[in-house]
Amino acid sequence: MTTPSTPQAPTPKVGVVMGSRSDFETMQGALDLLAQLNIPYEVRVLSAHRTPHLLTSYAARAERLNLSCIIAGAGGAAHLPGMLAAFTRVPVLGVPVQSRALSGQDSLLSIVQMPAGVPVATFAIGQAGAKNAALFAAALLATTDDAVRAALDEFRATQTQAVLDDPHFDGHPQAGAQ
Amino acid sequence: MTTPSTPQAPTPKVGVVMGSRSDFETMQGALDLLAQLNIPYEVRVLSAHRTPHLLTSYAARAERLNLSCIIAGAGGAAHLPGMLAAFTRVPVLGVPVQSRALSGQDSLLSIVQMPAGVPVATFAIGQAGAKNAALFAAALLATTDDAVRAALDEFRATQTQAVLDDPHFDGHPQAGAQ
Amino acid sequence: MTTPSTPQAPTPKVGVVMGSRSDFETMQGALDLLAQLNIPYEVRVLSAHRTPHLLTSYAARAERLNLSCIIAGAGGAAHLPGMLAAFTRVPVLGVPVQSRALSGQDSLLSIVQMPAGVPVATFAIGQAGAKNAALFAAALLATTDDAVRAALDEFRATQTQAVLDDPHFDGHPQAGAQ
Amino acid sequence: MTTPSTPQAPTPKVGVVMGSRSDFETMQGALDLLAQLNIPYEVRVLSAHRTPHLLTSYAARAERLNLSCIIAGAGGAAHLPGMLAAFTRVPVLGVPVQSRALSGQDSLLSIVQMPAGVPVATFAIGQAGAKNAALFAAALLATTDDAVRAALDEFRATQTQAVLDDPHFDGHPQAGAQ
Amino acid sequence: MTTPSTPQAPTPKVGVVMGSRSDFETMQGALDLLAQLNIPYEVRVLSAHRTPHLLTSYAARAERLNLSCIIAGAGGAAHLPGMLAAFTRVPVLGVPVQSRALSGQDSLLSIVQMPAGVPVATFAIGQAGAKNAALFAAALLATTDDAVRAALDEFRATQTQAVLDDPHFDGHPQAGAQ
Amino acid sequence: MTTPSTPQAPTPKVGVVMGSRSDFETMQGALDLLAQLNIPYEVRVLSAHRTPHLLTSYAARAERLNLSCIIAGAGGAAHLPGMLAAFTRVPVLGVPVQSRALSGQDSLLSIVQMPAGVPVATFAIGQAGAKNAALFAAALLATTDDAVRAALDEFRATQTQAVLDDPHFDGHPQAGAQ
Amino acid sequence: MTTPSTPQAPTPKVGVVMGSRSDFETMQGALDLLAQLNIPYEVRVLSAHRTPHLLTSYAARAERLNLSCIIAGAGGAAHLPGMLAAFTRVPVLGVPVQSRALSGQDSLLSIVQMPAGVPVATFAIGQAGAKNAALFAAALLATTDDAVRAALDEFRATQTQAVLDDPHFDGHPQAGAQ
Amino acid sequence: MTTPSTPQAPTPKVGVVMGSRSDFETMQGALDLLAQLNIPYEVRVLSAHRTPHLLTSYAARAERLNLSCIIAGAGGAAHLPGMLAAFTRVPVLGVPVQSRALSGQDSLLSIVQMPAGVPVATFAIGQAGAKNAALFAAALLATTDDAVRAALDEFRATQTQAVLDDPHFDGHPQAGAQ
Repeated sequence: MTTPSTPQAPTPKVGVVMGSRSDFETMQGALDLLAQLNIPYEVRVLSAHRTPHLLTSYAARAERLNLSCIIAGAGGAAHLPGMLAAFTRVPVLGVPVQSRALSGQDSLLSIVQMPAGVPVATFAIGQAGAKNAALFAAALLATTDDAVRAALDEFRATQTQAVLDDPHFDGHPQAGAQ
Repeated sequence: MTTPSTPQAPTPKVGVVMGSRSDFETMQGALDLLAQLNIPYEVRVLSAHRTPHLLTSYAARAERLNLSCIIAGAGGAAHLPGMLAAFTRVPVLGVPVQSRALSGQDSLLSIVQMPAGVPVATFAIGQAGAKNAALFAAALLATTDDAVRAALDEFRATQTQAVLDDPHFDGHPQAGAQ
Repeated sequence: MTTPSTPQAPTPKVGVVMGSRSDFETMQGALDLLAQLNIPYEVRVLSAHRTPHLLTSYAARAERLNLSCIIAGAGGAAHLPGMLAAFTRVPVLGVPVQSRALSGQDSLLSIVQMPAGVPVATFAIGQAGAKNAALFAAALLATTDDAVRAALDEFRATQTQAVLDDPHFDGHPQAGAQ
Repeated sequence: MTTPSTPQAPTPKVGVVMGSRSDFETMQGALDLLAQLNIPYEVRVLSAHRTPHLLTSYAARAERLNLSCIIAGAGGAAHLPGMLAAFTRVPVLGVPVQSRALSGQDSLLSIVQMPAGVPVATFAIGQAGAKNAALFAAALLATTDDAVRAALDEFRATQTQAVLDDPHFDGHPQAGAQ
Repeated sequence: MTTPSTPQAPTPKVGVVMGSRSDFETMQGALDLLAQLNIPYEVRVLSAHRTPHLLTSYAARAERLNLSCIIAGAGGAAHLPGMLAAFTRVPVLGVPVQSRALSGQDSLLSIVQMPAGVPVATFAIGQAGAKNAALFAAALLATTDDAVRAALDEFRATQTQAVLDDPHFDGHPQAGAQ
Repeated sequence: MTTPSTPQAPTPKVGVVMGSRSDFETMQGALDLLAQLNIPYEVRVLSAHRTPHLLTSYAARAERLNLSCIIAGAGGAAHLPGMLAAFTRVPVLGVPVQSRALSGQDSLLSIVQMPAGVPVATFAIGQAGAKNAALFAAALLATTDDAVRAALDEFRATQTQAVLDDPHFDGHPQAGAQ
Repeated sequence: MTTPSTPQAPTPKVGVVMGSRSDFETMQGALDLLAQLNIPYEVRVLSAHRTPHLLTSYAARAERLNLSCIIAGAGGAAHLPGMLAAFTRVPVLGVPVQSRALSGQDSLLSIVQMPAGVPVATFAIGQAGAKNAALFAAALLATTDDAVRAALDEFRATQTQAVLDDPHFDGHPQAGAQ
Repeated sequence: MTTPSTPQAPTPKVGVVMGSRSDFETMQGALDLLAQLNIPYEVRVLSAHRTPHLLTSYAARAERLNLSCIIAGAGGAAHLPGMLAAFTRVPVLGVPVQSRALSGQDSLLSIVQMPAGVPVATFAIGQAGAKNAALFAAALLATTDDAVRAALDEFRATQTQAVLDDPHFDGHPQAGAQ
């Protein structure tokens, strides 16, 4: 279904799927971080409910491409991550998309409460979860890929330094009342 | 979608009722789908609390018209679906309308947690639930009505194809990092 | 997988499936009522997560047998009802099994909050839901099957009479204080 | 349906109804207090779902008997209090019975979240709510009935004194560490 | 604290209090209905937490004025209704104001979950609850006040007729698909 | 109300109150720790709802005794901590007692969601919260009382060491698979 | 409110920390009140997750400065207050910041549900909690600092008077219906 | 702190930690599966709150041992998984232990709702989550370890076959009514 636009496109190491186009804004957080960490990925819409027959083919593709993991975002009765995990041993990272009525509480429970036997690694509701799924994917790769490890270490060091360098309170006296 | 009544108006096969005018925006999702699938329906406001005496008359009407089902939407302490189900064996499909303070959690529990003996088939909070109630009504009819079955099969095929044809990611490189 | 034990076994009209053996106690409520209403059914364990490849085959079987509906019970991140509904237009009735930690709140949301396009008719958490799914299946059949309609009407009349006949308060003075 | 066993039974001032025999244990809390406060009452099972036609007749009876209020207990999708309030202006006091799966959260929301126009006065989940409904009924009567007012005042004084007299900590040193 | 502006102002029959000025928008729903039903009332801000000493004085005032009930609205950890009920036998009707973070779930539980012994009649979160508290106050008065009963009966008949007269669906054919 | 049994009883530094005798089992966790840390305390039942007039007298007593803080435990619509905080500036530590139907969720929200202006320091539901309230009281005293500081430091060191010394895994091979 | 540091800046008595710059708007409520009550404080961003090594150093600083307490605000999986409490006996006041998806329910539970042994005094979700943490800090200081006690007493008296003086209802007739 | 009992003990590939001895029953589910899949692991109690200084040392140990991941179980305000993730890039798998009052809802939110920047892969509440964390750890190892992959594949095949072989319904007639 997806044909690399150019021969030199790197083989993806992470697959990012989402249940609906409307999940894209959330999942962008994962895509941005993967790109920032220079981790090749592929992305597509894959609906557990509207395209259930693609579950097996994508699971097979993930094994064929030897993906290190699949990041799957979905909302409401979010079955995509769990069903992919049912069809493949490739690790699945689930991102609960914030739903309209229940703010993602339904998405979270539908993803995280998997019965014993088929695991889905679940992250926070919404874009924070999407970003953390990408960082977790990087951490998985970092165990065997020095470049990813270096990129991840730099990312973590940078975000730590950003707190330390916070200019906000620097110019201000720390003691409040005079 | 609705045009003035004429003698040849088809006998409705589905009754759509709602507890309040303010539920109309939600229930429009059901009406649109029923029209799209060419299923004759009737629609009215019917309040379990403000017009309780209409419950028996509408239940009788549903049996007289031999409706295949009643789609009933209501919010908050949503008693309309359950009370209709109490008065008639005609299958009742309940749609929890998203309420203001509790986002439909009250509507959902008031509809779905029926005690044993009087069932209400419940769908998702809000317009997704209204749409799915209509699709479920179509599925009921499809078991004996070839035209509805064909329309429903086409609807499902179309929504599947819409995911497959998703143009969104086509123009973008599918592999993320270069 | 299931071969009728004897040729004269009636063709099932309702399929009852559950995600795990541990759901049986809950689903017994449906089986008992189907039997009481003389509705032929078949029953099996079918795990969306542990036997995902059976989803398509059971969906095909349901269409081949022309089942009037499938009653599917599951708990936790309960994907079975929704995934069956993804694979077939045969109406799916979902029963949220009461889960250990969250008392079925996860089961309920995982089943009822289906996105627009693929409906699952959802019933109450636990055995009340299982019973009501069976009664709803009977109501579906009753629209075209006189015997089921008569059995259902009798069931409803009986349970109404049981309340009217309640002997409990008869021996007690109905007026409290003397 | 209920015929006073003896002519001299006092006319009930409060009607106590419940959706199911299984609610009796909870509602006993109300009956005991009404008896203790010497308020005549009648009690019966009245199911909104299994005996819906009784709603109108009981509402008419409540007006005919000039009941000061109706105490209605129900669990799950608890429609009894709200439907009675729909059929009569007689004040309805709702008691959410603790349900099995959701501990009465469904009962509470189904009773308290009534839409504007038809009020139900709601009390706590379970027997505490049943007792308080009885005390509230007494408070209503107390505005015009001196005997009830005296009984209620005595009840309140007694329960206050019971705290003041609490013997528990008397034998223990009140200062902890020596 | 409140001195009637003119001698001829009628003695209030209902006291409306609220925990904060910010609750006024919600409680306006009660005031409007009381005025519409011609029930004299008084209104004031009375904070359980910021003016706790007023609790006893207002409770005494309520008894002195022989108020038929107190309508008390509050949000968050809403202690006002329960504390008034602790200080007086005058019936207290609690209105949970919709809070910012938790949408009134905290207000509702803080008001409705009173322990056995001190009842607060609780209504829905927000303005629906405020309106219903006023209607319930009217229903209490209606048991002994013919004018209020007539006004309440008219109000209920009017709201029923408003549903029956709903012009929305009248001009439209009730059968949807052609 | 409480008169020290002997003249040499130390002046209490912490007041422990609870809304009901039934809260004692929970609050025992606080009493035991205060005793262990050698902090003099007094304890009594004080019901915001059944003995509201005691609120002012206990608040006055707390100021007169110069208590460093009041630990107040209550369940359900738990108003005791907040009302004490309304009547005195003495710091109030609230302990939500686990309630029957809602497991203390009502207690927690009724205590912690205080509006701006009157603070209650809230701890975990149940005995863990009671223990931590006592430890927090000790921490408050420790800022000016060397003996309490030493006792608290020892307590913390001991509980740290207990983890380090955990004998449980010592006899077992720490590496799992052989 | 805060002006450049000068040698005579008073030693802070309260430390205010927050997990992220985005928490500042919430915590401003605490800073304003501390300034109003003339309590010297310091403020900084301190992320349990992004700058975990600062936890020990800030805990040591709090003890070195002999802070009377630390006010710590955080959202989502809010670990900052609990981890500071793990590293120091200095009392920690936790403020749950309102999170995006779950409105601070996650923040609240992550802060308040500390296990026995390490207490965090928790306040309401959002700015009300921040303000109350500051008032509680003042109450702690007030036990030994006359100036703070006077400032706090004045603050409380003023907010009480503000309710009493409420001009809102003055221009309106207090009795509703004429 | 842990010294392998014998030189030939295999270097652990997975670290299993838990916040308290009382979490052991839950985490046993992970240990059993790791042993069954022949994955060397080490296990210890490590309390974020009672032994916070061990967080850095265990994080360093995990990096030194080149653990493929850390499985961390904790309950209530469960900070252990998130704090370990703060201190090391080694992937952390969090298991929410079912807590007493809130059934693990607090544990779940405290673990899964990590802010962007520091991920924790979260699994279901209780033993199902512990088992799935172990299976997920196996899946991580399986990407580079053929023996683990074979063991995991066999495990998954076996659990699938167990459903297919389910003897339960075999002896029963599969068609219900005769």
